[in-house]
Amino acid sequence: MAKEVTKRSENYSQWYNDLVMKADLAEQSAVRGCMVIKPYGYAIWEKMQSILDAKFKSVGVQNAYFPLFIPKSFFSREAEHVAGFAKECAVVTHHRLMNDPKGKGVVVDPEAKLEEELIVRPTSETIIWSTYKHWITSWRDLPILCNQWCNVVRWEMRTRLFLRTAEFLWQEGHTAHATSAEAEAMTKQMVNVYADFARSAMALPVIVGHKSPNERFAGALDTLTIEAMMQDGKALQAGTSHFLGQNFAKSFDVQFTNNEGKQEHVWATSWGVSTRLMGALIMSHSDDEGLVLPPVLAPIQVVMVPIYRTDEEHNAVLDKMYEVKKQLEALGHSVKVDDRDTLRPGFKFAEWELKGVPVRIAMGARDLQNGTVEVARRDTLTKETMNLEGVAEHIHGLLDDIQKNIYQKALSFRDANVRKCDSWEEFKTEITKGGFLLCHWDGTPETEQAIKDETKATIRCIPMDSYVSDEEGTCIYSGKPSKGRVVFAISY
Amino acid sequence: MAKEVTKRSENYSQWYNDLVMKADLAEQSAVRGCMVIKPYGYAIWEKMQSILDAKFKSVGVQNAYFPLFIPKSFFSREAEHVAGFAKECAVVTHHRLMNDPKGKGVVVDPEAKLEEELIVRPTSETIIWSTYKHWITSWRDLPILCNQWCNVVRWEMRTRLFLRTAEFLWQEGHTAHATSAEAEAMTKQMVNVYADFARSAMALPVIVGHKSPNERFAGALDTLTIEAMMQDGKALQAGTSHFLGQNFAKSFDVQFTNNEGKQEHVWATSWGVSTRLMGALIMSHSDDEGLVLPPVLAPIQVVMVPIYRTDEEHNAVLDKMYEVKKQLEALGHSVKVDDRDTLRPGFKFAEWELKGVPVRIAMGARDLQNGTVEVARRDTLTKETMNLEGVAEHIHGLLDDIQKNIYQKALSFRDANVRKCDSWEEFKTEITKGGFLLCHWDGTPETEQAIKDETKATIRCIPMDSYVSDEEGTCIYSGKPSKGRVVFAISY
Repeated sequence: MAKEVTKRSENYSQWYNDLVMKADLAEQSAVRGCMVIKPYGYAIWEKMQSILDAKFKSVGVQNAYFPLFIPKSFFSREAEHVAGFAKECAVVTHHRLMNDPKGKGVVVDPEAKLEEELIVRPTSETIIWSTYKHWITSWRDLPILCNQWCNVVRWEMRTRLFLRTAEFLWQEGHTAHATSAEAEAMTKQMVNVYADFARSAMALPVIVGHKSPNERFAGALDTLTIEAMMQDGKALQAGTSHFLGQNFAKSFDVQFTNNEGKQEHVWATSWGVSTRLMGALIMSHSDDEGLVLPPVLAPIQVVMVPIYRTDEEHNAVLDKMYEVKKQLEALGHSVKVDDRDTLRPGFKFAEWELKGVPVRIAMGARDLQNGTVEVARRDTLTKETMNLEGVAEHIHGLLDDIQKNIYQKALSFRDANVRKCDSWEEFKTEITKGGFLLCHWDGTPETEQAIKDETKATIRCIPMDSYVSDEEGTCIYSGKPSKGRVVFAISY
Repeated sequence: MAKEVTKRSENYSQWYNDLVMKADLAEQSAVRGCMVIKPYGYAIWEKMQSILDAKFKSVGVQNAYFPLFIPKSFFSREAEHVAGFAKECAVVTHHRLMNDPKGKGVVVDPEAKLEEELIVRPTSETIIWSTYKHWITSWRDLPILCNQWCNVVRWEMRTRLFLRTAEFLWQEGHTAHATSAEAEAMTKQMVNVYADFARSAMALPVIVGHKSPNERFAGALDTLTIEAMMQDGKALQAGTSHFLGQNFAKSFDVQFTNNEGKQEHVWATSWGVSTRLMGALIMSHSDDEGLVLPPVLAPIQVVMVPIYRTDEEHNAVLDKMYEVKKQLEALGHSVKVDDRDTLRPGFKFAEWELKGVPVRIAMGARDLQNGTVEVARRDTLTKETMNLEGVAEHIHGLLDDIQKNIYQKALSFRDANVRKCDSWEEFKTEITKGGFLLCHWDGTPETEQAIKDETKATIRCIPMDSYVSDEEGTCIYSGKPSKGRVVFAISY
């Protein structure tokens, strides 16, 4: 095949890049660090969006749209937020180009300097809370549950397609509440929405937990996260939900009259997932033949490849295939008949394997005579010959099996690579082998930082659902007392 | 009512602003010229997106995503495009902020100057054609039919919510073809998709036509447009589709090997509609009581307001309403039961009228006894009492009637305000009265410019479907021969 993919065992990082490029998911653009998301990749992202969007709406969240630009001064308002976000970002300083008086082309018009620079949003807490100020007067105006789907920019020195790009697409939810308890419940509800999405749509087992203070969002009192394990044993943070307390309400002076007539600052949450999920999806399930897509997110769930020698055979097989396509579509599935007559079947097989289509149907003249088809599964790379009669219903069930199987495989892999570790010497060796280490930690930022400095490992989360621990012990690093194990890993 | 709206007859422009603000569609943000699209406004835009997106996909268009930023030098490539777009735009010059060494807050880090400035996309032809170069080798790679939903920025001195904002949301389709004929057919197909959408979803009668050379997109050989008439008689360009010839392919050196083995430049189209459609929607149908939304685009199609004196009555009426809601939802309609117990029915009636909900159902204790409901139409502001039995089916049909009626009303208004005009003296008077004037024009840019300079009127289009004319005559301005009438109007 022309499109050979590097093996995972040879070079995991190159394997990832190969998949993204060769399966037509995304590519680098002419602008440093900004990617082009190609139609096949974007179709997966659209499926993610549509499922997530429905989940958000089912819990009462509404979509809205806030400006791309944020006045520079807004970043100085919330002290911790400045440190976290007002650093590497795109700064708009001028609003006009003009023809170069000295030659060809265009130059920036020096007369068109902005009075105050504008920052391309790296995240929108500041501009949104400056807006909420006008929307909120009384407790009757609360809660406000808004989300936006948009692009954001964080200038990154080293970029990788989907995983870390200067511009990326995401959704950011920003909610305003009358009480701390309500905001905390919202924070938890949204991380659970993400966990449920990751598990059921992405077939991605995730651990839900609290971030340690060092890893919290800049300006948050608590950050909840879903953490996934990639096939190389590294962790990938796949979504976060932040309890922001009253920090932004205080910075932007957003108060409401409570039902006792008193003025109070509003309580806030924010939560987001991004096109980074695409990276997580690719790295969790795919193999050396290419992508493996869970059926729920596959733009094409079933591909059909005709085998033929003559035009008559081609047409006869295609006729039957379009019949089966109709049956499958009636069951809600997306189907492609690959009727290109300039390519050999073997080429087509490899191409659809590379693109991760969950089920492939092949049919030839002899199948037509016998009333059979060959059905191949992408996840197991197995195939079987079966009766044409009832094949649509069979595949309907098969897609469901594949979705479950992909999840189970990823879950088994993860569980096999989560292990307890109780000594610092052991930790230093074990962490280099990949996987998640469940360790005791004394709860201090200093210890966490020291461990990171020595091993690059960070606390991915203090688990809330899987691997929850209330076992007492002593910190692997400081030997001080600990009230439970946390998850350490090297992360993306 | 607290939310009184200026009358159209008093101040049309203020009426528009009042509607946008008071119906919670959008508002100005803290950033000059950038708007916040509020949840109710965004829900209408989402409905537009979803209908258009399905139409695009049905003609084979796929979504993708291209970078927000465009290198400055790209704008110098296509000569006419430079003049048209590389002017008022947001220019990114730096990529870092730092703490102000002299005080509080943050300043731009002078060390972090970009080697080449980046322009926030005002439209994406240049970055997309620089990408297509890598996608296209042979005729087998064509056509490419991509669309993106995104934000764009054009620095505007005078902004109006939805109609003209520095940042706006839109979709831009960019297609690549092997032949001129195919690209021209695509250009026409897409303007017809827009016309169909405007008529059937927005209930907006539009004239499809060619733009005159002066009004063409910068870099296009032909621009097709849909032009709508607002209630003040002004024209609003609601969507455009451009035949770009080989201009961008030549500027970015995009060639393909045709099926005879020869190298040729690729043929291009681009087409877009934006959040400006929101402005067109509001200005076409709404009245002094507020918005009038066509049911197809209304986020809430039916609102139910209970009338009651006691809690028992409230609950009994609500129970019945939730029953009807279920029936309506089963028929595919979006329904809201306004169960707020702190507001009077009259207040609720006015609020939902302001927000343009097509049908309102009111029900009280006596209705419950009699098995009746009161059904009010927003478009005609009429109401009738009818049997509760079968009310869902009735409203199902009624919503369809309302959609048609809103279109017919707008069509009658437009047709009553399109008139022929055959002399320059008459033109100068008539054009100040609003409406579209069908006039002879000599086909030269000079005459068009002269007419614009004297009257502010422009050629909105050379009609292709409605008002098509092959009547010969003499130009109203120059007296030179003309082969048909064109549409003149003052426009937004």
